[in-house]
Amino acid sequence: MEELQVGYQPELLLDALKERSVLKIRQIFENFNIVDIADTINQMEDIQSFLFIYKTVAPEYTAEAFTYLDSSVKERIIEILTSEQISNILANQYSDDIVDFIQEMPANLTTKILAATPKVRRNQINQLLNYHEDSAGSIMTTEFIALKEQDTMETALAKVRKFGRKAETISYLFVIDEKRILKGTLRLKEIFFMDDKEVVSDIMESDFVHVLANDDQEEMAQTFKKYDLNAIPVTTNDGRLVGIITADDIIDVIEEEATEDIHMMANIQPLEYEYSKTSVWSLAKKGVVWIIILMISATFTSFIMNGYENAMIVVPALSIFIPMLIDTAGNAGNQSVTLVIRALSLGEISTRDYLKVISKELGSGILVGLAVAVVNFVWILFLDATKLISLVNSDISPVSLGILVALAMFISIVISKFLGASFPLIIKKLKIDPALLAGPLLTTCIDAISLVIYFLLATQIFQLL
Amino acid sequence: MEELQVGYQPELLLDALKERSVLKIRQIFENFNIVDIADTINQMEDIQSFLFIYKTVAPEYTAEAFTYLDSSVKERIIEILTSEQISNILANQYSDDIVDFIQEMPANLTTKILAATPKVRRNQINQLLNYHEDSAGSIMTTEFIALKEQDTMETALAKVRKFGRKAETISYLFVIDEKRILKGTLRLKEIFFMDDKEVVSDIMESDFVHVLANDDQEEMAQTFKKYDLNAIPVTTNDGRLVGIITADDIIDVIEEEATEDIHMMANIQPLEYEYSKTSVWSLAKKGVVWIIILMISATFTSFIMNGYENAMIVVPALSIFIPMLIDTAGNAGNQSVTLVIRALSLGEISTRDYLKVISKELGSGILVGLAVAVVNFVWILFLDATKLISLVNSDISPVSLGILVALAMFISIVISKFLGASFPLIIKKLKIDPALLAGPLLTTCIDAISLVIYFLLATQIFQLL
Repeated sequence: MEELQVGYQPELLLDALKERSVLKIRQIFENFNIVDIADTINQMEDIQSFLFIYKTVAPEYTAEAFTYLDSSVKERIIEILTSEQISNILANQYSDDIVDFIQEMPANLTTKILAATPKVRRNQINQLLNYHEDSAGSIMTTEFIALKEQDTMETALAKVRKFGRKAETISYLFVIDEKRILKGTLRLKEIFFMDDKEVVSDIMESDFVHVLANDDQEEMAQTFKKYDLNAIPVTTNDGRLVGIITADDIIDVIEEEATEDIHMMANIQPLEYEYSKTSVWSLAKKGVVWIIILMISATFTSFIMNGYENAMIVVPALSIFIPMLIDTAGNAGNQSVTLVIRALSLGEISTRDYLKVISKELGSGILVGLAVAVVNFVWILFLDATKLISLVNSDISPVSLGILVALAMFISIVISKFLGASFPLIIKKLKIDPALLAGPLLTTCIDAISLVIYFLLATQIFQLL
Repeated sequence: MEELQVGYQPELLLDALKERSVLKIRQIFENFNIVDIADTINQMEDIQSFLFIYKTVAPEYTAEAFTYLDSSVKERIIEILTSEQISNILANQYSDDIVDFIQEMPANLTTKILAATPKVRRNQINQLLNYHEDSAGSIMTTEFIALKEQDTMETALAKVRKFGRKAETISYLFVIDEKRILKGTLRLKEIFFMDDKEVVSDIMESDFVHVLANDDQEEMAQTFKKYDLNAIPVTTNDGRLVGIITADDIIDVIEEEATEDIHMMANIQPLEYEYSKTSVWSLAKKGVVWIIILMISATFTSFIMNGYENAMIVVPALSIFIPMLIDTAGNAGNQSVTLVIRALSLGEISTRDYLKVISKELGSGILVGLAVAVVNFVWILFLDATKLISLVNSDISPVSLGILVALAMFISIVISKFLGASFPLIIKKLKIDPALLAGPLLTTCIDAISLVIYFLLATQIFQLL
């Protein structure tokens, strides 16, 4: 990842600011990538410099740079800007960026920002702010190009020219009637190939894909991906076009949802900010809840071992394979939990595929269980033969110990994979996020179940109790 | 997600095929979404129907539907098509789709497909196939619109019209010199606002972002996201433009990489196909490797417990809290592993942030450890007071047992979070994927470490040995 030519250097901007050189600053904003420039502003100690930039360069540059700033930097800037200055910056932004920005700000600044927004846009933004945080409506933009069914190539191109600067995409155009009901979609390139007699309704796609403003963003991203779109229209329940969602928004949603799933599967409550901006306190808070719940639920294992204490006094070697047993059974089931949760969230399977998924995981559980049992049996004989493990206190044969552990492993792995496949599907069916609950539930159950199986088998094999 | 109008039904196509109604089939392909139609073809038992479709509808429809078919269906179709028919389908596809498709097919069919490709395209495709599987070059498309620096608005628009139909995007245009060196990028909408005296080089962005054909796709996706792009140019090391990557490709990369990370963190080797298409055998194979490695490495816990067998014979209650202890310590460390791996793969932190990350996780470890230790101590007193756990065999006071377990928990959690933060960074520094190794390494270490801490503390507190 290098620049082909002599690229942007943070020093360019920093020096130009130190010199207060209007000309140099303007040249930097005109010639270099705005994301790199925003990175430099993010690193600046002295936020007053932004005021100088604001007064120096054209508002579209300031506005664009502003969207790429860290939220803490935005906060400091909003505090020093006047209403009019804020208003100038907002005038050059897409409504979805403004909404994102308002959602990041503390309440006192939100009021200042909304007050600085022209009334028409304020209504629009308030409407966007009213959508549920994870809905399609909350991430859509209201800047799109709308055509009428009777538009000719000429009218259509004129509209693209007129509204193109403000629109977030011009590759996709949306056809509405006088009630703003969405009638069709088309690509800009199709307009180029219209002939003189054709109107927009002749060439538009009327079996278009769309989402509702209240649809969940994760589902929406799946639809977007399934139909290989670059922009998707968002409508109300009665079909009125209210906004569009473009690929860059989808990329954010997909990453965000994947991060949330990954964190939840590791028993971490979803973070509000990215990791590097999350404080130690907040990290501890997001982590400690499930750690304590899981610790308390692990008490079941203590109960079971407490109940079989006599068996362990007679055969002390029993206890030494317990961590290995419950770790292995847990790992096997966790694989199934993970596979099923991920396949669910990618839309590859649905809760209706219950039987197919279960039989798949049971099959794989039997194969994995057999392989593990055989390796385990041989391994225990090896540990005894090489005296790496001493059974002197226990008065049992290594073969019977091997059979016990291997058999307990096999049964536990099969059950663990079965439960690991079932829990996410059942939890999803109950309309709860499986990434949140399936893992902890499995750990709790399989720890207890594998211990019970182990001790039941042990009392049979060693004629204990 | 509903259609606004009476939508597509699979029966429409199935009935039309049964009736062999050319007219109806054509209407269906013209009026409905091709992805839905492809879904129906995927479900068909009788693949000969595709041949009928092929002969009935225009090649651009067949070609588009073809790209959305499952690879097993594609395979069956390629087997029955003639070279000429394959060639017609390929002629209407983007080169990146052809490359994806060839990579999915078994070797004998690959030859058949390449033989059916016109020579010029075959060279192009062979070149794409030569890029490493996870490189930018392997997912780019070679269909883009190239302009020259001296092009006027008129020439530029003429090129867009001429090459637009074949190009994967017309929103972004790429400016090259006579040696095909990339000189700049611009958006189609900017061309609309050029005045008569301007040429392309006056308005193009010359500080553009680009990637090299050999760059890793994950890094590439990060760049794409950072700069909020909709298309990114791909060049050779000496700056020649060889292809472009569009947002839909990035969405695939991001999902694929997240899935791979999620699977690896659950000790599953990356699957080749999506879950629902992976066989039981292959699932078992992808899962069993790490299960067995982890089982063998859990032998360390057996060694340690075997070494302290006498302590457990004197105080049998010692063993009953072992699963709780190692589960809790493992969970705490796994949170850190997961947070750090995800932050690394999102580019939020890098290996240079070692000290910052470690101190963050150590801090959070101390806070979590304190909370867990206090809860644990109270919980053990409660379990004893309510007789849920009986200490009758062990002749120890519940307070000293509580202190032992709580103290071991605290120390193990702090160490576990420290190691959990360190391992991914160290492994990444060694240029290995942390998602693959950090988890298993942590489990192995922390199981052993927490047991040693537990028994060392126990021998001190209960004056054992």
